[in-house]
Amino acid sequence: MNKSLKIVPLGGLGEIGMNMMVLECGRDAIIIDCGVMFADANVPGVNLIIPNFEYLRKTKLNIHAVILTHGHEDHLGALPFLLHERPIPVYGSRFTTELLKFKLTEFGLLDSTKVKTVRDADRISAGPFDIEFIRMSHSISDAMGLAIRTPVGLVVHTGDFKIDPHPADGRKTDLERYRELGKEGILLLLSDSTNVEVPGKSMSESSVRDGIDDLMKATKGWFVLSSFASHIPRVQQVIELAMLNKRRVCVAGRTMVQNINLAKRLGYLEFPESLLIDFKQATRLPRHKVAIVSTGSQGETRSALAKMALSEHKELILEKGDSVVLSSRFIPGNEKSIYYIMNHLYRRGAEVFTNTGSDIHVSGHAYQEDLREMLLATKPQFFIPVHGEYRHLVKHVELAHECGVKKSHAVLLENGEPALVTKDKITKQGAVLDVTKIAIDGLEYLPINDNVIKNRRKLSDSGVLAIGLCFDGDSGELVGNPTFKSKGLCDDERMHEILPKLTRHILQTIDKATRNSRFSYDDVEEEVRITARRFLVRELDKKPIILPMATSM
Amino acid sequence: MNKSLKIVPLGGLGEIGMNMMVLECGRDAIIIDCGVMFADANVPGVNLIIPNFEYLRKTKLNIHAVILTHGHEDHLGALPFLLHERPIPVYGSRFTTELLKFKLTEFGLLDSTKVKTVRDADRISAGPFDIEFIRMSHSISDAMGLAIRTPVGLVVHTGDFKIDPHPADGRKTDLERYRELGKEGILLLLSDSTNVEVPGKSMSESSVRDGIDDLMKATKGWFVLSSFASHIPRVQQVIELAMLNKRRVCVAGRTMVQNINLAKRLGYLEFPESLLIDFKQATRLPRHKVAIVSTGSQGETRSALAKMALSEHKELILEKGDSVVLSSRFIPGNEKSIYYIMNHLYRRGAEVFTNTGSDIHVSGHAYQEDLREMLLATKPQFFIPVHGEYRHLVKHVELAHECGVKKSHAVLLENGEPALVTKDKITKQGAVLDVTKIAIDGLEYLPINDNVIKNRRKLSDSGVLAIGLCFDGDSGELVGNPTFKSKGLCDDERMHEILPKLTRHILQTIDKATRNSRFSYDDVEEEVRITARRFLVRELDKKPIILPMATSM
Repeated sequence: MNKSLKIVPLGGLGEIGMNMMVLECGRDAIIIDCGVMFADANVPGVNLIIPNFEYLRKTKLNIHAVILTHGHEDHLGALPFLLHERPIPVYGSRFTTELLKFKLTEFGLLDSTKVKTVRDADRISAGPFDIEFIRMSHSISDAMGLAIRTPVGLVVHTGDFKIDPHPADGRKTDLERYRELGKEGILLLLSDSTNVEVPGKSMSESSVRDGIDDLMKATKGWFVLSSFASHIPRVQQVIELAMLNKRRVCVAGRTMVQNINLAKRLGYLEFPESLLIDFKQATRLPRHKVAIVSTGSQGETRSALAKMALSEHKELILEKGDSVVLSSRFIPGNEKSIYYIMNHLYRRGAEVFTNTGSDIHVSGHAYQEDLREMLLATKPQFFIPVHGEYRHLVKHVELAHECGVKKSHAVLLENGEPALVTKDKITKQGAVLDVTKIAIDGLEYLPINDNVIKNRRKLSDSGVLAIGLCFDGDSGELVGNPTFKSKGLCDDERMHEILPKLTRHILQTIDKATRNSRFSYDDVEEEVRITARRFLVRELDKKPIILPMATSM
Repeated sequence: MNKSLKIVPLGGLGEIGMNMMVLECGRDAIIIDCGVMFADANVPGVNLIIPNFEYLRKTKLNIHAVILTHGHEDHLGALPFLLHERPIPVYGSRFTTELLKFKLTEFGLLDSTKVKTVRDADRISAGPFDIEFIRMSHSISDAMGLAIRTPVGLVVHTGDFKIDPHPADGRKTDLERYRELGKEGILLLLSDSTNVEVPGKSMSESSVRDGIDDLMKATKGWFVLSSFASHIPRVQQVIELAMLNKRRVCVAGRTMVQNINLAKRLGYLEFPESLLIDFKQATRLPRHKVAIVSTGSQGETRSALAKMALSEHKELILEKGDSVVLSSRFIPGNEKSIYYIMNHLYRRGAEVFTNTGSDIHVSGHAYQEDLREMLLATKPQFFIPVHGEYRHLVKHVELAHECGVKKSHAVLLENGEPALVTKDKITKQGAVLDVTKIAIDGLEYLPINDNVIKNRRKLSDSGVLAIGLCFDGDSGELVGNPTFKSKGLCDDERMHEILPKLTRHILQTIDKATRNSRFSYDDVEEEVRITARRFLVRELDKKPIILPMATSM
């Protein structure tokens, strides 16, 4: 039998974030990553978005392992929701699995989950799959690429990575190993597409050191640097520079405290315990002796930085002479929130530095020339770009062609589009799976295209009008007048103006609708809804959700 | 008497957009610009945002004129709303006033409004003010700066501008005139702050020509360029390049058609009538003979470009070989929409070019060194930065200090903070006016902090639950069971599960509340609301708006 491998992307192909992929051989499978996406105004009221696990429920595969490439939320954030349904052993590097454990504890899943920690170059087996972990450089400690030996051939998955000749933490992407694997013969390469649009090679993480140092030296007051709490290589550089510049370090923000403690405990960060100071000490030292490392670089409203900006932090009070460095990129969609915080930082008298004006941030993802290098090192027979929006995947397929992958061998897949790989062919499976994302909404799960969410968008546009109607059960006649309650429709004054007229319209409608002796309350409600809707469009040019509430006695 | 001038910023100071300023001398006043802001997800359901005119209503000033610096929406979009309240003569350049007339026609205000067209260097008088119009270069035709002679001294307002040695339309900012005015002695300068953060000098509009030409030459299929419809200098270059490259031009999008027709009629654009083709002709010509100029560069969902991207345009169907150039910057907040459209353009097979990878857009606003040049040319005694968020205003004040304006003479004002200027002093007036922005919501006006809008945000978070309660008017007892209707709260299945339990809770609450013989329905409703709220937080972790509807017979 000609064996085949099935690649099933459940997230991250056609979008940035929420990465998840299933690798199958017969009934055996492994899962690579299981990330979340954050909700925006299009899915109002929703806390988080996770991949759709329905495919896994239906297929009843024998899932031997979840393999985590690294600890970012878009790679492991949805795993507790999956583990809640079924226990699967999880493999990942030290830092990754320790971050996962925080989550598992929160979800009460720590005891029931087998979490296994691997190191660079480790190999584990999971069913018919043999997985080798390869050292990768990325904007978090301990990222891994994967070399997966399958019955069909060798599959290589880069995870998220960059190629950095001078990583701050010394963790270089193990290109040599990729070259060896390339010589061994790679059947299929799956590679990170995030920065494929950006020409050239990515800047080294250590290149931000001078920029940050210059600003730290030039700052007369507090030096505040905000970055992602998981970006330990960045934090490491700030801590080293603080020591050189004789500033003590104050850590602000819950996840920043958590991650710095974790990184120190595991040896990813090294500094004398005495370096750290608390908020009180920070306020007592001369201001030029203090560096603050903080969360909030994306303008998150409840972050430590936002509290400082809005004068809501009880202890850390900014003033003229302080500098705030936003050491991260502005994630699309967050710009307005970030500018809001920046303006408030200026109101406090602080000077703010961003990526635009200063060299204080570099990307953690490989640029076009780095991706080319990965393709040339691995010389894969087949190629599927991962981790990117549609346009990134298009560009990465083109790049693979340039690097010698045959036209029909580089395939653009999107979420829910499986592909079959044999020793000599890669083919898209025609059928497309339902991968409608799932919203975590309070304590409930909702498909993000659910009517509940559509109705929220409608409500946010024009509000709601409830109409109370009380009928005499015997005579079928309306008792008294309709009562009204509205929220989010128009102001009370205007409501007061239009209600008498609306009442008249509704009374007429009810009069007409109840003339038929076999009328139902459902019919009457629908007639009232239509009347009210037409009236409100005319009077207010608004289409609220209308809830007629007929009761009878 | 020591005369004084009052500067009252009603919009655009502390924000980008919605520019409006009042200049007063005693009871006499003029208004400079009257712009709109576009609503985002924070003000759901709202069409437009305009400045608060309450100050004008209260003060009963003798307003002699509205002076428009140029035709962008954030400078004239709110004017019809003001003119609807009171007629004021309007002055502006040819292109500006013609754009205004489109609006006035729409609002039925064309006949009742005195619109006067001025040319470069024209002077008009309005009460005690003498206003001279100065030629400015900007990303729209016919922008003007203002030299306003007042009883206190000479006030100069730059409007929006850039300094461009090679403007595509030949319209250079008249720096010479600013230098002359500087020599004459400028009491107060008000200058555009939009790009004060950007170091260096702004790029010339003509510098995009080569970038666009290269792409046009390299494109085998249709060449589609999308920009703001008011950016006539940009459109002019595309049309010239299309002629040189032997491509006929097809115009897509209502405002683009309107503005190109207007610009041609007024002489701002020159091309043979035969150059233009309609959609049908575009589809019939060889594809390399066609250039399409389109709206939609900000990812607007109903634009011509969005329709092409989503295969919703009936005639213009994109295919492999076509290029789409987004010849504009990504306005913060629009990134996700733009990426959405870009991905769909790639799905159609088109190649997309943006500002990031190619030289196909430059800003219409002066950079730091240009702003310095303006300050050095005008040598003002006093300085107030305009058109910028808080951080821009801070930076511009600092720049003014560097250019020789005394510390106490450069003043940072925000919307609603008036300043008094005499011959030798500028002082902020302590009192701050209410400048809460006004939302145009359907046919109604709402302050943007109104409860109506807050309730919409609440509704969008957790939806609504209406509870029908019918009481016997005689006995005061509840008749039958409560009835429920909800939207946007949770799915029907879950609702069905929790309703019996919620019903029991509510019946208990009513039972308790109605034991007191003097209960009011309002009290019962409030008790029911509290009970339901507590229940839903526990069961769903959601806080919907709850509308108890008690009726009685």
